[in-house]
Amino acid sequence: MNVVVTLDELRVARRKLEAPVGFVPTMGFLHDGHLSLVRQAKLDCASVVVSIFVNPTQFGENEDLDKYPRDLQRDLRLLESAGVELVWTPSSEVMYPTGYQTWVIVEEVSKPLEGTMRPGHFRGVATIVTKLFNAVQPQRAYFGQKDAQQAAVIRRMSRDLDFPIDIEVCPTVREPDGLAMSSRNVYLSAEERKAATVLSRALFHTKITFDAGERDAKCLRQGVLDTLATEPLIKVQYVSCAHPDSLMEIEGNVERALLLLAVILGKTRLIDNIML
Amino acid sequence: MNVVVTLDELRVARRKLEAPVGFVPTMGFLHDGHLSLVRQAKLDCASVVVSIFVNPTQFGENEDLDKYPRDLQRDLRLLESAGVELVWTPSSEVMYPTGYQTWVIVEEVSKPLEGTMRPGHFRGVATIVTKLFNAVQPQRAYFGQKDAQQAAVIRRMSRDLDFPIDIEVCPTVREPDGLAMSSRNVYLSAEERKAATVLSRALFHTKITFDAGERDAKCLRQGVLDTLATEPLIKVQYVSCAHPDSLMEIEGNVERALLLLAVILGKTRLIDNIML
Repeated sequence: MNVVVTLDELRVARRKLEAPVGFVPTMGFLHDGHLSLVRQAKLDCASVVVSIFVNPTQFGENEDLDKYPRDLQRDLRLLESAGVELVWTPSSEVMYPTGYQTWVIVEEVSKPLEGTMRPGHFRGVATIVTKLFNAVQPQRAYFGQKDAQQAAVIRRMSRDLDFPIDIEVCPTVREPDGLAMSSRNVYLSAEERKAATVLSRALFHTKITFDAGERDAKCLRQGVLDTLATEPLIKVQYVSCAHPDSLMEIEGNVERALLLLAVILGKTRLIDNIML
Repeated sequence: MNVVVTLDELRVARRKLEAPVGFVPTMGFLHDGHLSLVRQAKLDCASVVVSIFVNPTQFGENEDLDKYPRDLQRDLRLLESAGVELVWTPSSEVMYPTGYQTWVIVEEVSKPLEGTMRPGHFRGVATIVTKLFNAVQPQRAYFGQKDAQQAAVIRRMSRDLDFPIDIEVCPTVREPDGLAMSSRNVYLSAEERKAATVLSRALFHTKITFDAGERDAKCLRQGVLDTLATEPLIKVQYVSCAHPDSLMEIEGNVERALLLLAVILGKTRLIDNIML
């Protein structure tokens, strides 16, 4: 496995890879969610490139950029075991040199939900993914359904900007008790970790009512809220029943939707979603 | 010469081209300025791709999108004669389908001069060039020094977004009387066409004073203004002595600079510039 840091090193190493090239962009501190993307890329592609970069421009001023968990040596061992051909670990100076001033903005789909709670977040995401796509030039790129709005933003951006890249969105990987895997789960205390199971419980339970015939968007949102309310440590940021591509809130009858939530648990912000 | 319209046709035709591929993006109604870019691309590259697309998103609401001159058959004859391999003439529906919502913003360098006079112009330029780059995937792309700020915006954008493309900026091509070639020159009446020679005269004359030792930015700007003032049909929009990369206005001593101007002549807006 080749590990490179600079853009020039990346370009040289990229040229030697057999096509099709699959790409998994990450912020490191890898868990089985990331590794499921790598495994899918290995199945689909002749070569797999993984980037590890904690992208400062997608963090808000009061967010957790400084304390975001990092463990490069462990990440590299996991990627080596997974059979990854090339890992790129650029520095902030490589990605955002002095004088940097270009941004990619995806408008409507970036606005609700995470866009409201984290202003500027999707500008940072769309910009770094554009840069990574241009540098790595993969044929396919892999993202997790866990970050459902991010996946929608990137699908839209890739189509709008005519990237010749297939965007693959892979299922959320969960802990045995249902908690969606996230690098930020490490922030949770033992008590919070236990309370966090209410997120997936709320989604799964409401999906059961949907599958049993409940089609009213407001009732579905209320179903999630009611389950979340059973856990006093949870502060709800939003519960949404939204169109899977536009992330527009659905009112009235639901045919196909994403059920999404964001909560604060102690000092940790968690999101989860499920497809109805 | 292959002429294609859809993105799929473009991608299929692009795959057959020998590398390196040179790319000349245009809005059509070609003149010798465009053709000089094609000739340079032919010299540098194994294959040359030209796009013809009057990009609506770089026109302001009260600008000349509807009356912008077009002559596709003549353009194709000129490009065929020049030995171009592939011409792409996408429609607005191909480039901006329903639901389109992604924009590329280059911040500081887009703000002064044309950015002030034409709000949103460089957002449209940076976005369409990103799309064209992703679709055509050239090794080199050619732009005219005539649109000096546009060239600076695209250089900055290409570097910031890590496009693996060399940006080549070629000299302004002028009519025998000095007028910089522009598709918009066709708007000028005979009287206006004669008056328009004052633009290059103002720049050339001021460059002579620079070469003779004048180094004060304000005096250089005033030199341009004084010459322009000799032509009563001209309304000055700006005269600038600016840093060639940042387009920041220079105050005091000038070492290396762009001298730029924009004027209104009748109903036609004209720009020109010269390097000091």
